[in-house]
Amino acid sequence: MDIVRPTLVLDKEVCLRNIKRMADKAKAKNLFFRPHFKTHQSAEIGEWFRDVGVTAITVSSVHMANYFAQHGWKDITIALPVNPLEINDINSLANKINLNLLVENRDTMIQLDKFIKSPVGIFIEIDTGYNRTGIMASKTNQIDAILKICSQNPNLQFKGFLTHAGHTYKTKTKHEIFNIHFDALLKMRGLKSRYRKDWPDLIVSLGDTPSASICENFDGVDELRPGNFVFYDLMQHKLGSCSFEDIAIRLVCPVIAKHGSRNEVTIYGGAIHISKDSIVNIDGKNLYGKIVVREGKEKILLDEKNYLCDMSQEHGILKITFRDFHRFNVGDLVEIIPVHSCLTVNLMGNYHTTEGEQLSTIRKADF
Amino acid sequence: MDIVRPTLVLDKEVCLRNIKRMADKAKAKNLFFRPHFKTHQSAEIGEWFRDVGVTAITVSSVHMANYFAQHGWKDITIALPVNPLEINDINSLANKINLNLLVENRDTMIQLDKFIKSPVGIFIEIDTGYNRTGIMASKTNQIDAILKICSQNPNLQFKGFLTHAGHTYKTKTKHEIFNIHFDALLKMRGLKSRYRKDWPDLIVSLGDTPSASICENFDGVDELRPGNFVFYDLMQHKLGSCSFEDIAIRLVCPVIAKHGSRNEVTIYGGAIHISKDSIVNIDGKNLYGKIVVREGKEKILLDEKNYLCDMSQEHGILKITFRDFHRFNVGDLVEIIPVHSCLTVNLMGNYHTTEGEQLSTIRKADF
Repeated sequence: MDIVRPTLVLDKEVCLRNIKRMADKAKAKNLFFRPHFKTHQSAEIGEWFRDVGVTAITVSSVHMANYFAQHGWKDITIALPVNPLEINDINSLANKINLNLLVENRDTMIQLDKFIKSPVGIFIEIDTGYNRTGIMASKTNQIDAILKICSQNPNLQFKGFLTHAGHTYKTKTKHEIFNIHFDALLKMRGLKSRYRKDWPDLIVSLGDTPSASICENFDGVDELRPGNFVFYDLMQHKLGSCSFEDIAIRLVCPVIAKHGSRNEVTIYGGAIHISKDSIVNIDGKNLYGKIVVREGKEKILLDEKNYLCDMSQEHGILKITFRDFHRFNVGDLVEIIPVHSCLTVNLMGNYHTTEGEQLSTIRKADF
Repeated sequence: MDIVRPTLVLDKEVCLRNIKRMADKAKAKNLFFRPHFKTHQSAEIGEWFRDVGVTAITVSSVHMANYFAQHGWKDITIALPVNPLEINDINSLANKINLNLLVENRDTMIQLDKFIKSPVGIFIEIDTGYNRTGIMASKTNQIDAILKICSQNPNLQFKGFLTHAGHTYKTKTKHEIFNIHFDALLKMRGLKSRYRKDWPDLIVSLGDTPSASICENFDGVDELRPGNFVFYDLMQHKLGSCSFEDIAIRLVCPVIAKHGSRNEVTIYGGAIHISKDSIVNIDGKNLYGKIVVREGKEKILLDEKNYLCDMSQEHGILKITFRDFHRFNVGDLVEIIPVHSCLTVNLMGNYHTTEGEQLSTIRKADF
């Protein structure tokens, strides 16, 4: 197809390779692979996971769980602490599939105890240092309070401990990622040995994309839940989780203006296409995307002095060196590698693949 | 309706008041009012503008022009420099409605000259200092090159000069906004007097929301094009364009966790609902939203020490003072006033009004 406006293009081959690599790694480490689907949000891409044997998934909302349940997924963990206000939707979903919920406080557990009508699995969220949500591994009294309710209500089946070591995203070296991961392992293993007397089948679930991509030691872990690896992005590249060749998506945008006097090229493609997540560039400024230019059939990744430096709603501003300025002309298409693929995909709502397929996401689903 | 997940709520009364105030101001200043519809992106809200006599609008993409054309708008300016790759869509639209295009370089004009098939209006974009797109007012040779093509092709009807003084968004005092606006006025008036010998009907179009809200001097201006004023937001409040009472939208979010040890409350509502635009808070940190709590029928706007301080895809983190912490409980709803209403609306895709209506936007339109 002819691209004439900002369009999300997925390199299917790269994506399939990312999926297979992570599935193989989980298998080699004897881990149950429950990939997070919040990055791709697409029923079709879900099928590519089924092709490598995936049967259970993670999602980030009840809404997303409903979408994938409608597309045949029967075993879903919602990895956002339960929102008690959604109890009706939770009950309706739990009646149809094997649903696991995430709990991190007794107040929510009391609500679930009162209103849950079908069996659900309960994961207790452990905060291993990210400090977003979860119970500190040392606060066993809080864990005990939740487990007490589980032990009294047969619809609330304790499954195990789940953590998202999202503080790996704030690291500057791979060594820090190893440290965070090892610290999380120790905390989760400590809980496992403390509680498995009473709950012999409890599992330990973890797997942020940086740790899942880089680390090799998963002793004591039972389940791996990475999500972003399906596409990766500039943030992951910066962390060392992937190479440029592993980044599977690009936003293809038309060039609409050139301003040589300030070394800028304007593209049609802005905050409502790419999102405002940024990393710090070598010049200390915000970088919102890197640039690939097309010359004939060749694609050239420009160096870090050329980058998407600003955006408004529909405009993107590329800072371009004098040396590379000649590569840009009004009416050209350029490719932007996004900083945070999850947010770009969420904004765009559908993909074109390099194989010519059109894939949709939950954003375009009508339910 | 019962709100159970992140929901965009529009105060219709406030919105209607904002619309009427700006329409009245345009009338009082003898300006043609061509509001920008990129903030609300909604056919229904478009009708509220029709009710105050609006007949012509501004949009930010061909896609958005198509949407509003399908909803009966017959006079539309696309205020993004023409993307030559969309020429087929432009021709098809120009065949149906009065379409104005924005041009800021000769390369694009040559493409239009070759491929345009129906009459369109041409606005030349002038860069009055925002340095995003547009021709500097002093570069009359570039303007002349575009006008020469207009004078030779009857389908390319020169309409006038258009500017967006978006650098008002970077100001710290109202005084700076007055200065920027006055500077833009002088530049635009200079062009008007230079070119009106040859183009007696040429118009001058401007109107970023800060200038349109604050300034009183519009001498020499013919058309006013603000957009954000329909809802306003925290950014506009910070600039002095509006009071808190003028902000018409809020994202209502459930509380899902409390972490007293670090003065944090977690809401279900994150980057895919609110967007990552921020302003700097009094403590020097990023603020992504302010907080209104509900106590019975009362609504309390918390001070700036309480704010949305971080987000991931679905989680929002509220920093809450010890004094106000007791106001939050899991299962409560809180209201977030967004920093940038355009991006929040674009993400959410529909509204609930305080009058109980459900309004859709282009995001949910299927075309």
